[in-house]
Amino acid sequence: MSAQSQRPEPPYYAVIFSSRRSGTDEEYAAMSERMVALAAQQPGFLGVESARDANGFGITVSYWRTAEEITAWRAHAEHTDAREQGRASWYSQYDVRIAKVERAYSWERAEKTSR
Amino acid sequence: MSAQSQRPEPPYYAVIFSSRRSGTDEEYAAMSERMVALAAQQPGFLGVESARDANGFGITVSYWRTAEEITAWRAHAEHTDAREQGRASWYSQYDVRIAKVERAYSWERAEKTSR
Repeated sequence: MSAQSQRPEPPYYAVIFSSRRSGTDEEYAAMSERMVALAAQQPGFLGVESARDANGFGITVSYWRTAEEITAWRAHAEHTDAREQGRASWYSQYDVRIAKVERAYSWERAEKTSR
Repeated sequence: MSAQSQRPEPPYYAVIFSSRRSGTDEEYAAMSERMVALAAQQPGFLGVESARDANGFGITVSYWRTAEEITAWRAHAEHTDAREQGRASWYSQYDVRIAKVERAYSWERAEKTSR
């Protein structure tokens, strides 16, 4: 979430996706980028942030206006295909949590005037 | 969240902490470990998961039984000191979001019988 417009006032929704990769795969990065680009086109998408450590454990949090829009994105045909490929090829384990963001605050080093 | 006991049925709470490190610091790892150990001793703590990528962007999600227990942990003296040191020394920017987990599901590769 790098733009001010992507830090709306709560309430809004978060999808917390934590996963363990089973190995490395060149296709994974391309698919991951494609899913972010596709998600960004969906109604209600507010932003996404993602980190994966050197051991293959990663957390991606996407933010959405409503729970209904998350459900619609989950049912998107291309997303469904990607999920099946993820299970077949890339992940050894994952957790998904749908959560309603009730409070949010940010801190930024003062000498930085923009990011 | 590596134990079954740490995947309770919703509703429960998540603290989504996403941060950008301003540099490397040996003290950071020690402080981070200390905060996880201390959090785990607090009432209502359910688990924590964390990933930081090679560029210094990280996401830590801790899980709690109630919002009140999150507030209590936030006010813990040692946690407050760590937060001040984090602002002074380690972070260039961070976001905190308090969210109520409404739905959760897991997937695990079938050939693995335990983790």
